[in-house]
Amino acid sequence: MDFSPSPRAAELTEAVRAFVDEHVTPIEHDYHRQVARTRAEGGDPWQPLPLPAELRERARAEGLWNLFLPAGHEGPYAQRYGTRGGAGLSNTDYAPVAEAMGRSFMAPYVFNCNAPDTGNAEVLLKYGSPQQQREWLDPLLAGEIRSAFCMTEPGVASSDATNMELTAVLDGDEVVLDGRKWWSTGIGHPDCRILIVMGVTDPDAERHRRHSMVLVPRETPGVRVERMLDTMGFQDEPYGHGEVSFTDVRVPADNIIAGPGRAFEIAQGRLGPGRVHHCMRLIGLAEHALELACRRGLERVAFGKPLANLGGNRERIADARIAIDSMRLLVLHAAWKLDQGGPLHALSEVSQIKVAVPNMAQQVIDFAMQIHGGAGLSGDFPLAAAWTAARAIRLADGPDEVHRGMVARLELGKYGAAR
Amino acid sequence: MDFSPSPRAAELTEAVRAFVDEHVTPIEHDYHRQVARTRAEGGDPWQPLPLPAELRERARAEGLWNLFLPAGHEGPYAQRYGTRGGAGLSNTDYAPVAEAMGRSFMAPYVFNCNAPDTGNAEVLLKYGSPQQQREWLDPLLAGEIRSAFCMTEPGVASSDATNMELTAVLDGDEVVLDGRKWWSTGIGHPDCRILIVMGVTDPDAERHRRHSMVLVPRETPGVRVERMLDTMGFQDEPYGHGEVSFTDVRVPADNIIAGPGRAFEIAQGRLGPGRVHHCMRLIGLAEHALELACRRGLERVAFGKPLANLGGNRERIADARIAIDSMRLLVLHAAWKLDQGGPLHALSEVSQIKVAVPNMAQQVIDFAMQIHGGAGLSGDFPLAAAWTAARAIRLADGPDEVHRGMVARLELGKYGAAR
Amino acid sequence: MDFSPSPRAAELTEAVRAFVDEHVTPIEHDYHRQVARTRAEGGDPWQPLPLPAELRERARAEGLWNLFLPAGHEGPYAQRYGTRGGAGLSNTDYAPVAEAMGRSFMAPYVFNCNAPDTGNAEVLLKYGSPQQQREWLDPLLAGEIRSAFCMTEPGVASSDATNMELTAVLDGDEVVLDGRKWWSTGIGHPDCRILIVMGVTDPDAERHRRHSMVLVPRETPGVRVERMLDTMGFQDEPYGHGEVSFTDVRVPADNIIAGPGRAFEIAQGRLGPGRVHHCMRLIGLAEHALELACRRGLERVAFGKPLANLGGNRERIADARIAIDSMRLLVLHAAWKLDQGGPLHALSEVSQIKVAVPNMAQQVIDFAMQIHGGAGLSGDFPLAAAWTAARAIRLADGPDEVHRGMVARLELGKYGAAR
Amino acid sequence: MDFSPSPRAAELTEAVRAFVDEHVTPIEHDYHRQVARTRAEGGDPWQPLPLPAELRERARAEGLWNLFLPAGHEGPYAQRYGTRGGAGLSNTDYAPVAEAMGRSFMAPYVFNCNAPDTGNAEVLLKYGSPQQQREWLDPLLAGEIRSAFCMTEPGVASSDATNMELTAVLDGDEVVLDGRKWWSTGIGHPDCRILIVMGVTDPDAERHRRHSMVLVPRETPGVRVERMLDTMGFQDEPYGHGEVSFTDVRVPADNIIAGPGRAFEIAQGRLGPGRVHHCMRLIGLAEHALELACRRGLERVAFGKPLANLGGNRERIADARIAIDSMRLLVLHAAWKLDQGGPLHALSEVSQIKVAVPNMAQQVIDFAMQIHGGAGLSGDFPLAAAWTAARAIRLADGPDEVHRGMVARLELGKYGAAR
Repeated sequence: MDFSPSPRAAELTEAVRAFVDEHVTPIEHDYHRQVARTRAEGGDPWQPLPLPAELRERARAEGLWNLFLPAGHEGPYAQRYGTRGGAGLSNTDYAPVAEAMGRSFMAPYVFNCNAPDTGNAEVLLKYGSPQQQREWLDPLLAGEIRSAFCMTEPGVASSDATNMELTAVLDGDEVVLDGRKWWSTGIGHPDCRILIVMGVTDPDAERHRRHSMVLVPRETPGVRVERMLDTMGFQDEPYGHGEVSFTDVRVPADNIIAGPGRAFEIAQGRLGPGRVHHCMRLIGLAEHALELACRRGLERVAFGKPLANLGGNRERIADARIAIDSMRLLVLHAAWKLDQGGPLHALSEVSQIKVAVPNMAQQVIDFAMQIHGGAGLSGDFPLAAAWTAARAIRLADGPDEVHRGMVARLELGKYGAAR
Repeated sequence: MDFSPSPRAAELTEAVRAFVDEHVTPIEHDYHRQVARTRAEGGDPWQPLPLPAELRERARAEGLWNLFLPAGHEGPYAQRYGTRGGAGLSNTDYAPVAEAMGRSFMAPYVFNCNAPDTGNAEVLLKYGSPQQQREWLDPLLAGEIRSAFCMTEPGVASSDATNMELTAVLDGDEVVLDGRKWWSTGIGHPDCRILIVMGVTDPDAERHRRHSMVLVPRETPGVRVERMLDTMGFQDEPYGHGEVSFTDVRVPADNIIAGPGRAFEIAQGRLGPGRVHHCMRLIGLAEHALELACRRGLERVAFGKPLANLGGNRERIADARIAIDSMRLLVLHAAWKLDQGGPLHALSEVSQIKVAVPNMAQQVIDFAMQIHGGAGLSGDFPLAAAWTAARAIRLADGPDEVHRGMVARLELGKYGAAR
Repeated sequence: MDFSPSPRAAELTEAVRAFVDEHVTPIEHDYHRQVARTRAEGGDPWQPLPLPAELRERARAEGLWNLFLPAGHEGPYAQRYGTRGGAGLSNTDYAPVAEAMGRSFMAPYVFNCNAPDTGNAEVLLKYGSPQQQREWLDPLLAGEIRSAFCMTEPGVASSDATNMELTAVLDGDEVVLDGRKWWSTGIGHPDCRILIVMGVTDPDAERHRRHSMVLVPRETPGVRVERMLDTMGFQDEPYGHGEVSFTDVRVPADNIIAGPGRAFEIAQGRLGPGRVHHCMRLIGLAEHALELACRRGLERVAFGKPLANLGGNRERIADARIAIDSMRLLVLHAAWKLDQGGPLHALSEVSQIKVAVPNMAQQVIDFAMQIHGGAGLSGDFPLAAAWTAARAIRLADGPDEVHRGMVARLELGKYGAAR
Repeated sequence: MDFSPSPRAAELTEAVRAFVDEHVTPIEHDYHRQVARTRAEGGDPWQPLPLPAELRERARAEGLWNLFLPAGHEGPYAQRYGTRGGAGLSNTDYAPVAEAMGRSFMAPYVFNCNAPDTGNAEVLLKYGSPQQQREWLDPLLAGEIRSAFCMTEPGVASSDATNMELTAVLDGDEVVLDGRKWWSTGIGHPDCRILIVMGVTDPDAERHRRHSMVLVPRETPGVRVERMLDTMGFQDEPYGHGEVSFTDVRVPADNIIAGPGRAFEIAQGRLGPGRVHHCMRLIGLAEHALELACRRGLERVAFGKPLANLGGNRERIADARIAIDSMRLLVLHAAWKLDQGGPLHALSEVSQIKVAVPNMAQQVIDFAMQIHGGAGLSGDFPLAAAWTAARAIRLADGPDEVHRGMVARLELGKYGAAR
């Protein structure tokens, strides 16, 4: 048993951390303020500001680019930019890198490691045809385009994926999509060019063979962003989450990833590592919140003492430290299990972290907000946005309840329970 | 012991409830959507829409107006509008009325019972000079103007009110204010005309005799709204919470309410009933959230069952019912104690509800958001705003920690602890 | 709305409280120590010591006897002892009296108000025939005998009462009992003379008409106490909880209370007030624990401060105060609802308190144990026994889960859910 | 990063697990029943039964003996019994072995790995003189004697060790002990021959140099076991926890371990690994409780379903799985940190597990008790004893509050807080 990170993981984590501290954190608050000002003054907050683009160039130049990619991919973009295709890190090695990125909201994008582009790229890397990879994976990895992932639907309880109503029906050599999705993350970005859309192809097939994943270019006729959604008052510009309708949307049948009926299989593979990434970023966010809480707790004075020394605040700091450390270990272990035997080997572990980490982060951040007083809820600190991120992930990629159900099912299965 | 409301309380509660159901709830969602659209399209979301004004006229006509006012006040507005001055309800009788209003965000304003105007009016009624009442209380009760309350400061831990830095110094027959406040609620409203500002008048006086409350007209030179603050992404237009600077602001010394040095005494009297109002409105909000949760839980189906029947959802519904009912009783009892012997008779009770009710509401609403899936965090349901209201009140009027400290101090005092 | 107790409730509560403080508390610890010593030295701890008997005489002489009895019962015992039959208190009025008794483990017995004798007496008062009342109710109220209540069974999940396996079959003018019960409280007492046993009489009847309640004299052939059970190491001598087998036990058919098939109806009526009593006694116990915690927290010093001032202890004291006060109100309200319209009018309320109060008490007592250090877990303080009492009641009279289910069912029923 | 146990750890863990399953678990329940019967029938429950002694011989023969000992110790006992002196396992390697032992209460003793003998042996191994090792360590490792550790005192808050009042004063070539200890674990065992007693030697020395640890033979005049204490009704025969008075107890000054004034230093070294052992055993206990809960949840049926499928039970099973797995990782990591750099390198980690693990275990076991109904609180299942063990460890070796304080202090220290 050895809890030391590998030398490469240690080195990359340190490099990302230093980059974030030096280049991202100092400008991040101003950036968000500028977006808010744009919005307040009637400008278009969905138009990205130039700053992140500059940072992206620097990150790419320093080799801190596409670190999430589990294997090399020597597409033309790699030649063009002189970067390695993908870092080829294991989940275990990428996990602390993701934590380092998670301390900032902007960092994942700066390093071209932001959801949902990471998951979409992984799907294309693993299941995409050479043609699909050339057309969409390459520019994604090059950072030239953005993508969206369209799974959740407004009209049904999407926690049960079999409820899905959007149809993706074969019609000759075309596939025709009809239906409506929401919480399609990334759709608001002006560079968003491609959507991966999950729909029902054959309602009569075996329960987990009915659905397909289809590549739908953003500009295909019939694709319409009905509105951008807000989460606890935040719109997350310039990425955002959209409600998207699909009306007689036709794309070549070749746009179906890995062929019809394989959506569940693909989703399974996509979600394991993706949940590790989400959770490790939340660990980073919670660490950042705890750091802010400690600093504020020592700086501000009430009733003659630093806030940290009042009432139960020290106990809450201790509980936060314990919660973060135990959750980090749980995620690292899940990542290691994924590396050992793949998603099916780590079903319980991945569901465990998906339940436990966002709840932990929500609670730690709630405490950090509280010790900041009113400032903690305002845009002056990243805490309100951090809380919202943690809260939202309790629903995204399957709500807590579904993951608890999975963990319990596997546990009871040890003693012979059918399901 | 008798848990029945008085006939008058029952009647008014029923009337308010019916009014809200019939006139407010049906239009509320559209109203918020319209505000959002205005903002999205670059309009001025701080410009109130006509709808609430119409509803206010109707509420006034039906005698559902100023119900919070603990005693009659026969100012000219009363003659003008043919309404009773104040309903003269006890805290115990007003409490269920406040709950009925709390089910909607717009309702308190519709009934001219919204914070901070209610607290400001109470202060003027109880401590204002006839001149001050004529000038500010009368138009407040008439609904012609709005007001703000300026106490919290950005630079210090305001949970300890003695940290306050804004000065309100006597200079001849003027009082001069210098300093900065924030979370000044209501300052964003175009009708806001008067601010009650708390500041240090005599730093050498006894600890609780140093501060004064000063009436500062909104348009006084030197008063500047530096910015409007957001809470978890919400700006609460058209009322809002502002950061306000005061630079050599001069008003007549007569604008000091009840004379210099009496701010703590006034605040004490203001905050007891105000906290009961806040808490009862939150009870109403939590009830509304639980209702939405039950309805959603029965409507939506996953894995072949209504959501309500999955996992621990029924237990959470039961826990929410228990939490709401016990908290309502705790608030009603605190109100009754206030009525029996005034704020000093109910110090522990008022601090108890101030801790317990917002936490309960936050938790119930969090559950309601969860059972709604992504929709629960979005603007499609009032839940995100409700959560934010509950969360913010854990800080407003003294953070949880301060109130727990008060309850513990009184408890230990029974056994001889000095403080 | 009026939170004052009635004059009679106030007077009796005060009298009971004074009696407990003066006569019971001072000797209680020695009493328990004596029982422990008896056991340690190989004596028979089930043989009651003389002290409580003396206190009982005094309580009876002071009119503090059978206060639980909801209506007068002028049996011969009343003439004999010159006491009123029953106090005739409403649930609302008896509730604070029960709280006052609950501060001590011995007190309920001293006042002839201990479970399960109270519930058994109520059943006989309400449903018993004159003959049954003469034979069993009269000596119970006179305090000459003790009784047991036999419902839970070892072989099935007794939370679902329809699982019950003991049969109580009519055979001519006899009823024959076969089966096994456990957690039959009171069976260990040498004065225990009568058992109320619930069993299946007609398995083909409608679901809630299958069971009967049968009066079985303790000495009937075939009744065998297999063993006494311990709860967290405690045996609760001299009352105790037994596992009892019934083998071809024959009693006259007249011993069926209110006739065959009425057990559920009787249980329903028995359990409403009984749960109020349990809960109010737990409120008293939790108050006592909090008092001990405050005293210990002020007396003992560590790191230069009284324990109460260290870490989060004051917050825990505040939370305990809030929890106790809100739970007391919830129980009082449930009692009031019972008085207003009977058990069917207060189904949710009674289930609510049955879930919430024991959990609250368990938590408050756990804190009190913690602040006492090792002493808190030992027999030197009544806290370990108090915790065990609260913990056990989370299972007795229906586990938490069943009561939460009832509350949720009634809540969802408001919105049309079938069950 | 590698979460696999070392081959030796894996092998020993498997061997211990198999031994426990095959030899200990099957007889354990009967053993406890026999102790209870002995007590109930007036016998001496402190007289150990022959069974464990037989198992101990077998464990020794299989080389599963003294596995806790961090380094070899080739005393005569090793030759005599042909066993290795100590297994020489690192903390990381011993941790899963301790978990395997923790599934049973009897197992640690069977493998000669039970507290407080393990900690006492470690102290003697690390700090004892050759003479002390010969006299006491050797027979301890041989399993011929038992020992006790006397630190906590009844008269003061022992969470602050500087409160200690027992004196251990040098008088010529003797050290004289006067004072009183309690919760002296193991003192009840007939084989207990040696006590390690901590007392004040020089009250004027620097704060952490005042105390000494003294080896006091059990039979020294002036040593008197005043009584055996019970924990939640349990006496833990035949080891037990005693209250012990020391009256003019005189032993040679050579009996001071490592010389006067070094008690804190020794305690520090003793407690790090000891807390890892405690926590890993609790992990094993919690696992066992969860297993029992799952089995019971599947076997028993209510309302037509297995208990596991009712209400929130599956969620509680999932939460228990998550809690156990994350806590195991936290303990393993703390053990690894201890191995990397010793106790001072792992101060926060060791305090973290000492807070978090017993609380987790208490909660998991509480759930397991609940799903067992009344049986869960009784002696029919090991759950009541398991809960009590977990609860007691929240106080033993420093209460939660002290360890939270340590974690917070180290956390705030990162940001410059003095203490």
